[in-house]
Amino acid sequence: MTNFENRIGVKSLLDKVVTADEAAKLISDGDVVGMSGFTRAGDAKVVPMALAERAKNEKFQIDVYTGASLGPEVDKYLAEAGVIRKRGPFQADAGIRNMINAGQVTYVDAHLSHNAELVRQGIIGPIKYAILEAVAITEDGMIVPTTSVGNSNIFAEYAENIIIELNISHPETLIGIHDIYTPAEQGKRGPIPMTNPEQRIGTIGIKVDPAKIKAIVISEEPDAPSMIVPPDEETQTMANILLDFFRDEIKAGRLTNELMPLQSGVGSVANAVLDGFADSEFENLVVASEVLQDAVFNLIDAGKVRFAAAASITLTKELQEKVYGNLENYADKICLRPQEISNHPELIRRLGLISINTALELDIYGNVNSTHVSGTKMMNGIGGSGDFARNARLGIFVTKSYAKGGAISSIVPMVSHVDHTEHDVDIIVTEQGLADLRGLAPKERAAAIIENCAHPDYKEQLWDYYNRAVEATGNAQTPHILSEALSWHVSLAENKTMKKELAK
Amino acid sequence: MTNFENRIGVKSLLDKVVTADEAAKLISDGDVVGMSGFTRAGDAKVVPMALAERAKNEKFQIDVYTGASLGPEVDKYLAEAGVIRKRGPFQADAGIRNMINAGQVTYVDAHLSHNAELVRQGIIGPIKYAILEAVAITEDGMIVPTTSVGNSNIFAEYAENIIIELNISHPETLIGIHDIYTPAEQGKRGPIPMTNPEQRIGTIGIKVDPAKIKAIVISEEPDAPSMIVPPDEETQTMANILLDFFRDEIKAGRLTNELMPLQSGVGSVANAVLDGFADSEFENLVVASEVLQDAVFNLIDAGKVRFAAAASITLTKELQEKVYGNLENYADKICLRPQEISNHPELIRRLGLISINTALELDIYGNVNSTHVSGTKMMNGIGGSGDFARNARLGIFVTKSYAKGGAISSIVPMVSHVDHTEHDVDIIVTEQGLADLRGLAPKERAAAIIENCAHPDYKEQLWDYYNRAVEATGNAQTPHILSEALSWHVSLAENKTMKKELAK
Ligand SMILES: CC(C)(COP(=O)(O)OP(=O)(O)OC[C@H]1O[C@@H](n2cnc3c(N)ncnc32)[C@H](O)[C@@H]1OP(=O)(O)O)[C@@H](O)C(=O)NCCC(=O)NCCS
Ligand SMILES: CC(C)(COP(=O)(O)OP(=O)(O)OC[C@H]1O[C@@H](n2cnc3c(N)ncnc32)[C@H](O)[C@@H]1OP(=O)(O)O)[C@@H](O)C(=O)NCCC(=O)NCCS
Repeated sequence: MTNFENRIGVKSLLDKVVTADEAAKLISDGDVVGMSGFTRAGDAKVVPMALAERAKNEKFQIDVYTGASLGPEVDKYLAEAGVIRKRGPFQADAGIRNMINAGQVTYVDAHLSHNAELVRQGIIGPIKYAILEAVAITEDGMIVPTTSVGNSNIFAEYAENIIIELNISHPETLIGIHDIYTPAEQGKRGPIPMTNPEQRIGTIGIKVDPAKIKAIVISEEPDAPSMIVPPDEETQTMANILLDFFRDEIKAGRLTNELMPLQSGVGSVANAVLDGFADSEFENLVVASEVLQDAVFNLIDAGKVRFAAAASITLTKELQEKVYGNLENYADKICLRPQEISNHPELIRRLGLISINTALELDIYGNVNSTHVSGTKMMNGIGGSGDFARNARLGIFVTKSYAKGGAISSIVPMVSHVDHTEHDVDIIVTEQGLADLRGLAPKERAAAIIENCAHPDYKEQLWDYYNRAVEATGNAQTPHILSEALSWHVSLAENKTMKKELAK
Repeated sequence: MTNFENRIGVKSLLDKVVTADEAAKLISDGDVVGMSGFTRAGDAKVVPMALAERAKNEKFQIDVYTGASLGPEVDKYLAEAGVIRKRGPFQADAGIRNMINAGQVTYVDAHLSHNAELVRQGIIGPIKYAILEAVAITEDGMIVPTTSVGNSNIFAEYAENIIIELNISHPETLIGIHDIYTPAEQGKRGPIPMTNPEQRIGTIGIKVDPAKIKAIVISEEPDAPSMIVPPDEETQTMANILLDFFRDEIKAGRLTNELMPLQSGVGSVANAVLDGFADSEFENLVVASEVLQDAVFNLIDAGKVRFAAAASITLTKELQEKVYGNLENYADKICLRPQEISNHPELIRRLGLISINTALELDIYGNVNSTHVSGTKMMNGIGGSGDFARNARLGIFVTKSYAKGGAISSIVPMVSHVDHTEHDVDIIVTEQGLADLRGLAPKERAAAIIENCAHPDYKEQLWDYYNRAVEATGNAQTPHILSEALSWHVSLAENKTMKKELAK
């Protein structure tokens, strides 16, 4: 535990250095706590672990709000220690997920761009403590975040007290890659002055009143590596289908070879699809996303991506070593921003993003479920997918056409939960093909989705439902047979398959 | 037909004055046509009627895109003449609605702020003709719209040809109330420079190349009056509940007495709720909406509303006479803008709107259906409700707790169609009470909605479903029994009631 003093620019704060246990004692039962961290990157780690330790001898609960999903320290160990009462706005760990779906943790799933406004209004809050991982505190009292910004700026502004996890395992070369801009209150704010994702509009750290900093804990815990699986044949097919679509859009005069700023969602499928650009003719791409996963750095290395901005960097072990060991090579090509900015409708619409997110399931009319397995069990959360899909120039959803070895069709008569409505879904891609839904009415969409995207095993079954629904409703706007619309999910629960002939 | 010349500032255009029949002949089978008009205001009238007439002797079809719903000339007579193949983005006439729900008109329901981007990308289009009602053409070649702007600016920019309906029954005092601003292409545009709804950022008319104007038809047809019904006891109760909520928000320090800019949706209920402000202590209110209905002008008269901006003015017969007969009294208090601006996510979020829209039905978890009766039959469309609800500071939905004399509960286990997801609905108001859903998880929301908003006749039935769903799913994130979730709608179809004991 050496060599941290030079990372604390405000020398009076050296007094505040304490152990994680001491810092954890500051938190009281019932506190609302805002923590740094976004998709396992830049999250508070040692104080939450000390809180979990403390819970062995003491009963207390807190509400935990973050940027997005945290690593196991919070979303597994702290949750399983019974410390988390309420959790928002995103998680992706089996530990907390199981507790959420057993009613042991109250989970508030929300659009990631909405949190900051809720903090301003005190709907989230009052925030007693912000626990923020930092790579340094500058001489003028700015907290420099590590591998994510997430909601840290807004937590720092509204929290009564701040605990810093000064993580000296993160390279100091991170200083300078952040661009912190926080809009003023609604009604008193101006436009966000960004017209291009490469433009810097803020500061390199989060300005705070140093008096709010009640403790600094020195940490050396690395970010938990991302657990995405590498591309497979089917995700490669999906990538190729999408690249061909972009080529057609260029021919139609709707895009140029540089495309538009790309957003790509969390998860293996979205990462794999982005990876597909590596061997393509596309160049000079700009990424304006929420998370930078492995694919983005591979594309920077391949000279395909010119610049990449997001709210966090989430890498596998292998990429972590490569990127953080050579950050100086990437420093002028990347930028980390608050999620209120990376996901802001104002910017997504102005910049004309192409947004690629993953669906859990979708229906024949183009409604997408991103969150709820069979309409009831929370998977991860909506994350930023709604911020992007609603406002993007092109709202693309990708998914394999089937799940669980074919027992599940990802395309169903009616989704069991809606996160993205028919109005927000432009393009659907499965390994079977692509449905371009732009400008189409529901029945036109149904034909495109069933024909182009459904798995062959389910095509006939989908047409059968659709045709009977058209008949039963007299060809209404959105034909459905309500007594049957969710029967595929019911069959899955009862017979372990959505396949009609097997279910009989 | 006198005294129109002085309304045509570009004298070379006087040559273009023709009859409606002659103008209608310019349109060809298969054309995509953009028409002015937004909620029965400022719509093209005489050329569509001439098209309907022409269709008696000739078979042809066109695609019709507008601002929002048009009056009977288009959405009844032109539709029933069989001329409309595709229609978007909003309608509210029984004539076309019946055809849509019989598969005779293809209807593309869309967020009203999305249309302009789709026109820019050519997804809507190429637009062969724009038919635009105007009160005048200025000397510098600007088309001055009448009682709505809607999409007229973007249609005028992208249409190959323009037909003007110069409507001399509209007072010339309309000149100056419009504020036309059109963003540039995505990626090449700057921020929309508005920080306050009272600010003017554009021009008083739509700049066009006069060479695109192929015909000018003189019209004296008034706007079809709005058909909203006056407030009743229940809508008054809803207004009072909402006013009390605002008072509580002021006490909590989240609002001031001037509130925030108010948006209020189409329909009788939203109008009635706004009317409730008349006898309140609130003052200096600003309206930033899509449509200005009767209530807004009553509130201006009562000194409650200081300024009102929208994309259209839609009034009953009585209010039409009062307002248009004395427009000079209102001219400095109102402003009409393109719907891309009135509904722009950038502005809605920046300004912090309070948005009040009407739900057809909603479910115990806060998902809202605004469009589809029993999930299949289109009512009107989503209109701007999604633009507002998603981005507003406060997204409020109002509805009576029951419909059709009590046979229908507006609150159901699962909505049969989702337009606004659980993430976009902050407050629900029925005549029974208010549910404040901000910051709540699904099961917390269910308790608030059932207890505060459901009709007493359905409360027990809703609790019964919910409790059994919690049991059946092991207390999952969003408890549902999928085999039963839509059974209330099935029962309605089969037994003409959602009431369980009557259905038996
Ligand atoms: C939807 C989402 C869960 C997909 O994740 P992914 O890793 O790309 O996709 P996978 O295909 O590997 O699916 C993940 C799991 O869901 C299962 N699954 C997929 N479709 C399913 C369906 N229709 N029904 C039930 N389970 C399904 C898979 O079998 C897999 O299960 P496993 O973990 O037990 O193997 C993920 O993208 C997500 O959480 N999205 C919402 C948030 C978001 O989009 N954010 C974007 C902005 S960052
Ligand atoms: C939802 C909407 C149809 C309600 O309209 P309204 O005039 O305020 O409401 P009403 O209560 O009078 O209901 C209208 C009709 O729907 C019926 N209805 C209401 N709830 C119903 C339900 N759950 N199931 C079936 N029918 C229902 C009513 O009985 C009434 O029928 P009627 O015309 O045969 O009498 C209307 O607000 C709308 O189209 N909204 C979507 C667009 C929008 O919100 N735009 C806002 C931005 S401008």
